[in-house]
Amino acid sequence: MANIKLTIQYDGTFYSGWQKQENAIGIENILEDALEKIVGKRTKLVGAGRTDKGVHAYGQVANFKTDAKIRPDKYPYWFKVYLPDDIKVIKSEEVPDDFHARFSAKSKTYLYKIYNSDDMHPIFRNFYEEITYDLDLERMKDAAKILIGKHDFSAFSGILEEKTNPVRTIEDIDLRKSDFGFEIEIKGESFLRNQVRIIAGSLVEVGRGKMSKKDLEKALLTLNRKDAGPTLSGKGLYLMGVYY
Amino acid sequence: MANIKLTIQYDGTFYSGWQKQENAIGIENILEDALEKIVGKRTKLVGAGRTDKGVHAYGQVANFKTDAKIRPDKYPYWFKVYLPDDIKVIKSEEVPDDFHARFSAKSKTYLYKIYNSDDMHPIFRNFYEEITYDLDLERMKDAAKILIGKHDFSAFSGILEEKTNPVRTIEDIDLRKSDFGFEIEIKGESFLRNQVRIIAGSLVEVGRGKMSKKDLEKALLTLNRKDAGPTLSGKGLYLMGVYY
Repeated sequence: MANIKLTIQYDGTFYSGWQKQENAIGIENILEDALEKIVGKRTKLVGAGRTDKGVHAYGQVANFKTDAKIRPDKYPYWFKVYLPDDIKVIKSEEVPDDFHARFSAKSKTYLYKIYNSDDMHPIFRNFYEEITYDLDLERMKDAAKILIGKHDFSAFSGILEEKTNPVRTIEDIDLRKSDFGFEIEIKGESFLRNQVRIIAGSLVEVGRGKMSKKDLEKALLTLNRKDAGPTLSGKGLYLMGVYY
Repeated sequence: MANIKLTIQYDGTFYSGWQKQENAIGIENILEDALEKIVGKRTKLVGAGRTDKGVHAYGQVANFKTDAKIRPDKYPYWFKVYLPDDIKVIKSEEVPDDFHARFSAKSKTYLYKIYNSDDMHPIFRNFYEEITYDLDLERMKDAAKILIGKHDFSAFSGILEEKTNPVRTIEDIDLRKSDFGFEIEIKGESFLRNQVRIIAGSLVEVGRGKMSKKDLEKALLTLNRKDAGPTLSGKGLYLMGVYY
C-alpha cells in the first residue's frame, strides 16, 4: 500500500465546505468520487482541516492509501479528468506510511481578503469580504500583536464540542495592503472553529474604531464570545498552506 | 417621459450574454424584470452592445424611457433590491430625449485578460483566458499596430448578417503586462461579432510564434476568416466603457 499526499486548490463558493452538510455537497465527497474512478474502488481521503462553506483553498492537503499501480506524482493528471473545474489537485507525492494529513500537521496559514471600498465589481463577490467604511491599518496591526502567542481563544471561537481544548498558539499575524484593500495572514499550529473569521472581524472593528487593543485583551481574559468582534463571511477566507 | 441612462457592471458567467438565447437567460432580461418591479410596468431597455455568453462588463450602458416618479440618480439603489448579486447598476442619470444607448455611442473600449501560466487557481477560471505557452509581448505589440485604423475586418469576424458593413475603425490597441499575465485593451467606434476575441486570438498566435505581423496584414487583404487566429473564449473579455 502506498500512502499518497495530495495538495489541493479550490473555489469553495458552491460547496458546503470540505465536509458534506445537509442539502449541500462537500469538496471531500467530490474528491472521493473522482478518486474512486481513478483507483477503481471507494477510498477514504483524510483532509488536513475542515474548511467552512464558501471558504477557498490554495494549499489544502489530504492523504489516502492505495494499492493502485499509478505513479505517485501522476495523480494531478488523473484528477483533472474527473474533477469539476472549481477543484484542482496541483501536486501528489508518496509519503511515509505514518503520514496523516490532519495529525501530522505542524502548522497552517490562512489568508483573509478584504475589499475595502464601496465599488466592488460583481466578479469579486465570492472572493472578498466587502468592508465599505475606512479602516486604520496601523491601529489593526498594533492590536493584532495581542493575539499572537498561546492563549485560550474561547472568545474567538464558534461553538465548540466539550472535549475541544480552546488553548491555541498563533505564531504570526501579518496585515498588509493589497490591490483592493488589505489582507490578514494568520499562521498557527491549529485553529478553533471560525477562529480566523472572528479574529478578522475583531480586527476590522478595531480598524473602524469600534473596538480597541484593550478590548481584544479583555476578550482573551473573559473568554466570552460577546467580547470579541463579529464572524466575517467564509468567502474572504483562504487556506493557504499546511506545513509538516 | 424621462430618458434614463444606466451604467451597468456584471459577471457574465451564468448568462447567455446581454441577449436571451435558447435555454439561457440574458442579462437584459434580468434587468428588465427588475425595472418592471421598480417602475411598475414592462419597459424596454436599449443596450449599447450585445456582449456574448460569459463576457463581463465594467461599463455597459443602457437607456429606457419612463414616467415613473423616481429621482434619475436613484435607480442604483432600487436595482440593488431586485437584481441578483452578479449584476449591478452603478450609475443612473437623466439624458436628452434623443439619447440612444446604441446609436448615440461614439466608441467602446474592451479589455481582454490573459492568465499566462499553467498554474491558474480555480477562482480565476471564469475571468481569464488561460494561455500556458510563453508569449513574446514585444512581438505582439509590434503586430497590433497593423490592425489600428480603418480596415475591412471580415477575416477577424464571426459570421455576419448580409447587411453588416465589415469596415470598422480601431482607434487604439494597448498591450501590457498584468499581475498574472497580460491584457489587451482595444478601443474603437464599434466592433463586429467576435472581433475583439479574434484579434486577441491572432495576437496570441503572434506572441507564441505561430503567426507574424505579415500574416495579420495578409488577413486584412484576403478577408478570409481562416487567415486570422482563433476566437478566444468569452470569459477573458470585458466591456470596459461606452463613450458618447
